[in-house]
Amino acid sequence: MRTYLDCIPCFFNQALRAGRMVTRDEKKLKSLLDEVGTILRDIPVENTPPETGMLIYDKVSKITGEYDPYKKVKEKNISQALDLYPSLKNEIKNSDDRLLTAIRLAIAGNVIDFGVNKKFDIEEEINVVLKKDFSIFDYDKFKHHLGKTDEILYIGDNAGESVFDRILIEEIKKPVTYVVREIPVINDVTREDAIQAGVDKVARILSSGTRAPGTVLETCNAEFMQLYRKSKFIISKGQGNYEGLSEEKGPVFFLLKAKCWVIANDIGVSEGDIVLKGINI
Amino acid sequence: MRTYLDCIPCFFNQALRAGRMVTRDEKKLKSLLDEVGTILRDIPVENTPPETGMLIYDKVSKITGEYDPYKKVKEKNISQALDLYPSLKNEIKNSDDRLLTAIRLAIAGNVIDFGVNKKFDIEEEINVVLKKDFSIFDYDKFKHHLGKTDEILYIGDNAGESVFDRILIEEIKKPVTYVVREIPVINDVTREDAIQAGVDKVARILSSGTRAPGTVLETCNAEFMQLYRKSKFIISKGQGNYEGLSEEKGPVFFLLKAKCWVIANDIGVSEGDIVLKGINI
Repeated sequence: MRTYLDCIPCFFNQALRAGRMVTRDEKKLKSLLDEVGTILRDIPVENTPPETGMLIYDKVSKITGEYDPYKKVKEKNISQALDLYPSLKNEIKNSDDRLLTAIRLAIAGNVIDFGVNKKFDIEEEINVVLKKDFSIFDYDKFKHHLGKTDEILYIGDNAGESVFDRILIEEIKKPVTYVVREIPVINDVTREDAIQAGVDKVARILSSGTRAPGTVLETCNAEFMQLYRKSKFIISKGQGNYEGLSEEKGPVFFLLKAKCWVIANDIGVSEGDIVLKGINI
Repeated sequence: MRTYLDCIPCFFNQALRAGRMVTRDEKKLKSLLDEVGTILRDIPVENTPPETGMLIYDKVSKITGEYDPYKKVKEKNISQALDLYPSLKNEIKNSDDRLLTAIRLAIAGNVIDFGVNKKFDIEEEINVVLKKDFSIFDYDKFKHHLGKTDEILYIGDNAGESVFDRILIEEIKKPVTYVVREIPVINDVTREDAIQAGVDKVARILSSGTRAPGTVLETCNAEFMQLYRKSKFIISKGQGNYEGLSEEKGPVFFLLKAKCWVIANDIGVSEGDIVLKGINI
């Protein structure tokens, strides 16, 4: 997905929010916003938003001196999600369609996102998403292709969400490679976070090599690219990965909640909608 | 009021919104946002937001070639407000406290604002504001000082709102000078708009000389400044004028709805609250 002009004010909000995670020094924060203003003029709208996100969070780290502004928040989110784990497993056990319930839970977990300017209540979100109609629902395709596939490439999004991904992986019952970011960016999942969430117990963890808050292929490493190119079944979680991959080749199922109206509009749904959308299938 | 860091993303949203009133040319709009990004680094946070607003709307005019992006919108808002005029007068006629009802209506009219990123329904707003409790309610002071005053300086805000101001001026029953912006900026009221709204029938109209979307004294003309300095009773409508005047001298009553959380926070109320607040009284 290209950068929409409406993404630009949002970049400033994201920078300010990330900056405030580590400092209340107004001068530093102002200089952060000034820097973002300066780099934006050199960024073409053809770039995807996570490419710009990468530059912005790099500025956040340099100006605040903090490499991982969301570290504590991520730890807390993972720990809260782990507390929910037994009840989520129970939810699946009691459901008519275990795989679909696991997909719904994986989408509910996607609400744990600090790149978007919204507060969230994860338990409330779970109750909503378990009952909500999908706006795009390629579930039959998903099941059909899953049945034919030996290996799954599962691209994670946020740290706390990875506990919910683990639950879906447990239902998939096939070998899964779980893809994480190379370094901390916003509250996106890194190898360390995925291990804390217990994903290593159910999948092989692989860094895509990206420093962007989304899967921007040009920024990914050779190992990931090789796997991505040959993969027959890719699950992409969340907005950042959608932004990076929506116009790429590769058989991808996007699982997400459209949390911002710009992305909702790009997908062709409404803000707040939930989506299971397959491309190049 | 100084510029809060949260105003900065909002400046970009305002520029984009104003730019889109006149063009859909993405390149022009991107270059507008780039220019805003460039000027922001030279603007200290000590400046008031309307000082920056002035620079931004100047860029909008220069880049789009349109001097008055909100012209048609303003005409429509004034015309809609004039259609409501008889029923508003009737509302006052049937009220227990005519002056207070007129103040409430003047605040309801303040919702007609394109500087703020919200849609509005003026008739619904009127019904809400007629019943809503004030968060700051210096009404007794207002009445007391009004009784002792020979002349009122009434600083207008938005174009459509000026019809509602006219109704309050009709209830004040004292000589009023109604202050407008020097040139079109956002949908703020100019002399031409005030005349279209019929304010000239009940008050003398005076331009403050400012090109800012708010009363920034440094940008005002000598005639206004002389009147402002000697005035014993000033009514200031809306957020832009509050931002310019909140730390200035002068006996001012602010009549506004706190439409953005930053301003609400500066006043000490909640977003959406209505306020009748006197300073230096």
